[in-house]
Amino acid sequence: MVIVGAGFGGLQAAKALGKADSVRVTVVDRYNHHLFQPLLYQVATAVLNPADISAPIRSVLHARNTEVMLAEAKSVDTRRKVLVIEGGEIPYDSLVLGTGATHSYFKHPEWDRVAPGLKTLEDAVRIRERVLTAFEAAERESDPVRQREWMTFVIIGAGPTGVELAGALAYMTRHSLPKDFRRIDTREARVILLEGLPRVLSAYPEVLSEAAKRDLEKLHVEVRTGAMVTDVDAEGVTFGDEHISTRTVLWGAGVAASPLVRSLEVPLDRAGRVKVTPLLTAPGLSDVYVIGDVAAVEQHGKPVPGIAPAAMQMGRHVGKTIRDRLANRPLRAFRYHDKGSFAVIGRGYAVGVLFDKWRMKGLPAWMVWAGVHIAYLIGFRNRISVMLNWGYTFFTKGGRDLRLITGKVSPRMPALASSTQAPALPPAQPELPAPRSVPVH
Amino acid sequence: MVIVGAGFGGLQAAKALGKADSVRVTVVDRYNHHLFQPLLYQVATAVLNPADISAPIRSVLHARNTEVMLAEAKSVDTRRKVLVIEGGEIPYDSLVLGTGATHSYFKHPEWDRVAPGLKTLEDAVRIRERVLTAFEAAERESDPVRQREWMTFVIIGAGPTGVELAGALAYMTRHSLPKDFRRIDTREARVILLEGLPRVLSAYPEVLSEAAKRDLEKLHVEVRTGAMVTDVDAEGVTFGDEHISTRTVLWGAGVAASPLVRSLEVPLDRAGRVKVTPLLTAPGLSDVYVIGDVAAVEQHGKPVPGIAPAAMQMGRHVGKTIRDRLANRPLRAFRYHDKGSFAVIGRGYAVGVLFDKWRMKGLPAWMVWAGVHIAYLIGFRNRISVMLNWGYTFFTKGGRDLRLITGKVSPRMPALASSTQAPALPPAQPELPAPRSVPVH
Repeated sequence: MVIVGAGFGGLQAAKALGKADSVRVTVVDRYNHHLFQPLLYQVATAVLNPADISAPIRSVLHARNTEVMLAEAKSVDTRRKVLVIEGGEIPYDSLVLGTGATHSYFKHPEWDRVAPGLKTLEDAVRIRERVLTAFEAAERESDPVRQREWMTFVIIGAGPTGVELAGALAYMTRHSLPKDFRRIDTREARVILLEGLPRVLSAYPEVLSEAAKRDLEKLHVEVRTGAMVTDVDAEGVTFGDEHISTRTVLWGAGVAASPLVRSLEVPLDRAGRVKVTPLLTAPGLSDVYVIGDVAAVEQHGKPVPGIAPAAMQMGRHVGKTIRDRLANRPLRAFRYHDKGSFAVIGRGYAVGVLFDKWRMKGLPAWMVWAGVHIAYLIGFRNRISVMLNWGYTFFTKGGRDLRLITGKVSPRMPALASSTQAPALPPAQPELPAPRSVPVH
Repeated sequence: MVIVGAGFGGLQAAKALGKADSVRVTVVDRYNHHLFQPLLYQVATAVLNPADISAPIRSVLHARNTEVMLAEAKSVDTRRKVLVIEGGEIPYDSLVLGTGATHSYFKHPEWDRVAPGLKTLEDAVRIRERVLTAFEAAERESDPVRQREWMTFVIIGAGPTGVELAGALAYMTRHSLPKDFRRIDTREARVILLEGLPRVLSAYPEVLSEAAKRDLEKLHVEVRTGAMVTDVDAEGVTFGDEHISTRTVLWGAGVAASPLVRSLEVPLDRAGRVKVTPLLTAPGLSDVYVIGDVAAVEQHGKPVPGIAPAAMQMGRHVGKTIRDRLANRPLRAFRYHDKGSFAVIGRGYAVGVLFDKWRMKGLPAWMVWAGVHIAYLIGFRNRISVMLNWGYTFFTKGGRDLRLITGKVSPRMPALASSTQAPALPPAQPELPAPRSVPVH
């Protein structure tokens, strides 16, 4: 049993098989940690530490029959039944693929360099540093036009990631940053959320989209729906007839399945996902299971959403299927139970649907969201740390202490002012008088 | 008033001048954060988060007369009285240089690539990832000789940094890591501490050096004193007639003053530090103060040590001197008050000297050390977070959750085993029976 990817799906599959002593499980991942992706935007906006939302895979999977290997999977050779990794091969009898999704820039892979997306810890730290560096650059910049460009932030895509990023970023500019700068007023920063569809959070009921938009606007996010982006470069973003000059563009728009599944040579949907069978196997490959964001599953004519609970349910189901097959028990088709999904707009404010029934917004929605996220977070220390950081942010109006740029001054930083001139520094202090006496000890 | 470097010295100077309304203070640093360097080794050994021991300079220096600029200082032009930074110049009337120390590889700058030192957060994260990756590589490696090389760690230099790193690393291999691996026993890892001088912690009284050595050996650190290293490369370390094959060498041996002070064109000592006047100014430059690790200060014929309290005292003294000169008050020479210094050996165990008088070791020394470090740490959230992480580590025997390799599988990782063969994986599970029935939902 080889499981590729220790995300929400892979981890559940491994855990479900951890007690099946006749099975040996090898979990392969290119990272050493499981990542709690739903809170990634809080690392990007300096509310949480990277380690708060990650757990070493080895420390999560302790079952004696389970082995963890840090390796990048390259392809699957279904004829020889081997997983090809960098520098070697791993034979499998059953294979579970839960390799997740990556950003998709549709037909514009070149946007990748200017508009980073948010999928990994590296992405989150990069976005945090880009945003903080933009304010540093604005503070140093003397040309008002360029200064405004540094203080303009565009987020493309108003799904949950885009909405959460925009809300948290706007909150930061209004509450945690203003006191820190002398030459700029960070409250004048523009946070612009662009969405090609007619409304934000289009997977949610319309009434919640409306509520989310109103609340984003209260936080001074400029929400522009029906805005199809046609160009993104280092100078700004173009959509329709409009152009916004900005130095910081974040990408929350498209995702595509991890390319590993292409090597299965089975039918994929438009997002590159495998159209799996009811047992979650790849069509024609009864020993290859595909789960989470790389699987396209339909239920009641609706696609199962690409969210953590769906991936976890698929992982558990595959674990059960494999145990049932070993025990020669009848197998059941996968069935998705919609427990709900939520998106956070701002401090103590969220929208969401619980059990596919109850629409919630405001503080109650935020409380459900917070409780569920704390409960599902892996590791006792992480739970404590996240709660403390939230409490701190809540009471002090801003995650002051985590505003860390790890590296030294960025190469992206503009030269001092726009010329080699000295900046308009405060006038020199009065000439110091000469020392009167210096008793030498 | 321009202050270069927001370390312990620069920060104290800025704070001392924060209330002097006739002075305008500009603090220049290439990092956006003040770093609490004494705890850096705990980031390197996965006990603390990077953000736990850093604080954004802007949030620390809130005085209205104080401005922070993120920039890399290049040189000082004392004739024109300007600080040259990347892409510009900043005129000064008084200048305080507190740019600290960097690693020194003596006459072997090429060792830099193979034997990273520990001065910045980037260094700490790099060391953490190197160490964790070495165990991952050992787990993947099938050749026992190479496996032993991956599990051998050499630390060069048994000053406080080297001793603390060695102790924490040995503790990790014995307590936090063993349960995580299947093919290797991390308790068999060798941690070797090399010191050219006849004893460890040579700045401490001999009896404490002895105690430290004994305690390191209890933690299974191999301590080798009188070991002059003559070669370091990617394959290992040579000293005397001996060669140790290892993939991981850490550098705790030499430091040298930051090169910025060279542009002052004043006499420097062998470590590149400015031999300052009793007022802590550079000789012949009454408007240039030099503090902390870039200043060479003697007192009672003994050098003032390069530790945080000394730098803080110098920073405060310079702030006071400048205020006194403005007020036309008599000036006093700097005088160092030795409050003590401590080095941690292991969990709940340290050695040190308090007030230049009391020698301490064991748990009492550790408690003083911990109390002082918590007290001097900047930021309420950091204090809470560090205490929690220490408590967690203490009670669970190891910093399990922070063992984060942020990036994906490292390029340093060996190819799978030493050939392109499949590794000796556990035997395949019994062939699965075909599914019996698949009710489609």
